[in-house]
Amino acid sequence: MDFQHSHTDKNSNARAGILYTDHGSIETPIFMPVGTAGSVKGVHQRELEFDINAQVILGNTYHLYLRPGLDTIQKAGGLHKFNAWQKPILTDSGGYQVYSLAENRKIKESGVTFRSHIDGSSHIFDPEGVIDIQRIIGADIVMAFDECTPFPCDFEYAKTSMEMTHRWLERCCNRMDETEAHYGYSQSLFPIVQGSTYADLRKESAEVIASFNRDGNAIGGLSVGEPAEEMYAMTDLVCQVLPKDKPRYLMGVGTPENILEAIGLGIDMFDCVMPTRNGRNGMLFTSEGIINIKNEKWKDEFGPIDPMLEGYVSTTYSKAYLRHLIMSKEILGAQMASLHNLTFYLWLVKESRKQIMEGNFSSWKNKMVKSVTNRL
Amino acid sequence: MDFQHSHTDKNSNARAGILYTDHGSIETPIFMPVGTAGSVKGVHQRELEFDINAQVILGNTYHLYLRPGLDTIQKAGGLHKFNAWQKPILTDSGGYQVYSLAENRKIKESGVTFRSHIDGSSHIFDPEGVIDIQRIIGADIVMAFDECTPFPCDFEYAKTSMEMTHRWLERCCNRMDETEAHYGYSQSLFPIVQGSTYADLRKESAEVIASFNRDGNAIGGLSVGEPAEEMYAMTDLVCQVLPKDKPRYLMGVGTPENILEAIGLGIDMFDCVMPTRNGRNGMLFTSEGIINIKNEKWKDEFGPIDPMLEGYVSTTYSKAYLRHLIMSKEILGAQMASLHNLTFYLWLVKESRKQIMEGNFSSWKNKMVKSVTNRL
Repeated sequence: MDFQHSHTDKNSNARAGILYTDHGSIETPIFMPVGTAGSVKGVHQRELEFDINAQVILGNTYHLYLRPGLDTIQKAGGLHKFNAWQKPILTDSGGYQVYSLAENRKIKESGVTFRSHIDGSSHIFDPEGVIDIQRIIGADIVMAFDECTPFPCDFEYAKTSMEMTHRWLERCCNRMDETEAHYGYSQSLFPIVQGSTYADLRKESAEVIASFNRDGNAIGGLSVGEPAEEMYAMTDLVCQVLPKDKPRYLMGVGTPENILEAIGLGIDMFDCVMPTRNGRNGMLFTSEGIINIKNEKWKDEFGPIDPMLEGYVSTTYSKAYLRHLIMSKEILGAQMASLHNLTFYLWLVKESRKQIMEGNFSSWKNKMVKSVTNRL
Repeated sequence: MDFQHSHTDKNSNARAGILYTDHGSIETPIFMPVGTAGSVKGVHQRELEFDINAQVILGNTYHLYLRPGLDTIQKAGGLHKFNAWQKPILTDSGGYQVYSLAENRKIKESGVTFRSHIDGSSHIFDPEGVIDIQRIIGADIVMAFDECTPFPCDFEYAKTSMEMTHRWLERCCNRMDETEAHYGYSQSLFPIVQGSTYADLRKESAEVIASFNRDGNAIGGLSVGEPAEEMYAMTDLVCQVLPKDKPRYLMGVGTPENILEAIGLGIDMFDCVMPTRNGRNGMLFTSEGIINIKNEKWKDEFGPIDPMLEGYVSTTYSKAYLRHLIMSKEILGAQMASLHNLTFYLWLVKESRKQIMEGNFSSWKNKMVKSVTNRL
C-alpha cells in the first residue's frame, strides 16, 4: 500500500492524495459506504461502482464473523469474491459492535468475551483473533482491535483504556507481521488513536500510534455523543501529530458538515451509516440542505430529488414519489433514499478534492457548510 | 389500441402477437410485474426496463387511490409521470383488494362500501367511480369493476355475482365511453369473465363479455385456491369463446408451470405477485427448478444464481451470497431475489414467444414444465 499526498490547501490542512491498494486506487479525501454484513443496505454493487463511484467500502468484522461466518467467507475466497465487490474493502476490528450490540460483554486485558446479539452464543475477540479474522475476510485495510470509550468518560477510565488499546495494538501488529495474506493480495493494518475528549491523552495516543509506523492511521472514539466542537478540537490536535505522509481515517464520522470540517483539519477517509440509515428513515442530504421527506410539504413536489447531482436516482425520481414510497414503507423508497444520500456523500468528497487541488477549498467549504446544514 | 396476432402454435392454442399502445408495443405472451402502489417492490424502474425487459407493469387501483391518492397523481400528470415509468401500465379495478384487504366491506348492486386497511376511513367503489379513478391514474389498460368470487363458491352465489359483474360491466363501458382520457394518450377497457369453476357460467360469461367488443378481454376469479386442473379447464373453455383477434389476460396467474400451460390454452397476458413476494421470502424460480435459498444446502454454493439467464443479478451474485442476505434479512437480498425472479419470468414468456414463432412451443413447453417444477 502506498499513499501519494499531492496537494495541501493553503488556508487549511485539507489534503488531496491517492491511496494505492491491490484492488485499485482510492482518491482522497474519500467517504466509504458501510457494508455492514457484506452489503451496503439497499444498494447493488454495480450501483456502488457506477452510480455512486464508491472507491472503497467498509465491512463489519463482528457481523461477518457471526453471519455468514468465516468458514463460508474463506471457502468463497474472501469477501471480495463472496459479495462480488472487486474494489478495495476496509474492515473494522469488531470492537465497536461488541460494545454497542453484543450482550454480556466482559473486557479484560486478554480480550473481550461477549454473546451474539443474534443467537446468544458465546465468543471471544482478542487482538490476535481479530487480525486472524480480518485475514480470512481479506480486507485491503485491516483495523487494530481497540476499546472505543463512550462519552462522557472519566479521565482515569479513558487513560487506562487508552493504555490497554496501545498494548493491544502491539499484539495486533505482531500478529499481522507474523502471518500472511490468504488470497495473494496485500493487507495493511491501521492503528487507532483513542483518549476520549482529553487533549493530553489524545496527544499521547497519537504519538504512540504514529510510532508504530503502519501504512495509515485512524482516529476512533469520536462522534459518540460529544459536542462537534470537541470532536473538531481532538481531530485537529491528533492531525498535528500523525504523520503527513500517511492517510488519516476519522472513524464513524459523520454529517456532511462534520466531513467538510474534518477534511479541513487534514482527514482523508470517512465512514458513517448516516446516509443509508437516515435515508431509510426519510432523511435526505442534498446540495441545498437537509430534507425530511415525510414532511407534508413535499407531497406534491414533482421536481427531482437533487438536480445538482448527476446520479440516476437523484435526477430521475421526484421528491413526491420518494415521499410516497417512504410513507408507504415501500422497499424502493429505502433503496432510492440510500442511493441518493450516498451519491451526495461521494459527490461531496469528490468536490472537496477538486476544490483542494484548485486551491479554493476553504472558501468553498465555508459556503458549502451553510448549504448542507440548511433545513429545507 | 391494436392487437396483431401473428403466429399460432400448430399443436396448441398458443399465440404470439403484438399489442400496440400509446406508450409503446407489448410483445405477447407477456408477464406484467406487479407495481402495487406505483412501485414493483425492490426493483428500480431502469432495472425493469433494462434488466428484466418489462414491457408493461401493473398498478393496483385500491392502493394508489388510498396512497398517494388521486389528487397527487393527477397533479403529477398521471402515474407514468409520477413514478417515472414511460412504458405501458395496466391498472386493476380495485375490486380484488377490496375483497381481500379492506375491512367492513359491503357489496351491493350500486357498489361496494369498505374501510381502508391503512386508517379505517370509509370509501365507496362503484363501476363509474373506478373508471374515473383509472382515468386519473392514466393506465393504458383499465380493468372493469367486477366481483371476484372465492373458491369454493356455491353455484347460486357464483351465478348471481356473475350477473351483477355483467351489469357492472355495462356501467363501466358507459362511463368509459362518455369520458375522455386526461393526459392525451388513449386508454382501453378490458372486461372480466367470471363464473367461478362452473363451466356453463364461464361459457355464458365469456359470451357476454365478448359481446361488449372491447379492445381485450380478461379472465378473473381463477388462481384463488382451486386445483390447477380446474383453472386450466375453465381457461381452455373461455379461450374457445373469446375472440381470437383480441388479447386475453389471465389475471393473477401464476407459477411458471401455470403460465406455460395457460399460454398453451391461448392466453396472452399474465400478472402475479409470486416472483416478487415469494422472492422476498427466499423462493427462487430458475431455469433448472425451484430453490428455497434458506436451505442449508446452498450455504457454500458459490456459483451464480442462474447462469442460463442473462441478467446482472442472476449471473453476478452467488447463491451463497444471496442466501446469506436473505438469512440476515438484508434489503439487498429482497432486491436480488425479486430482480432474479422477474428476470426469469420475463425470460420464460419471451422464450415461449420465440418457440411459438418457430413452431416448437408444445414440445418445448412439455420439457420446460418438468424443469420449472423441479425442486432443487
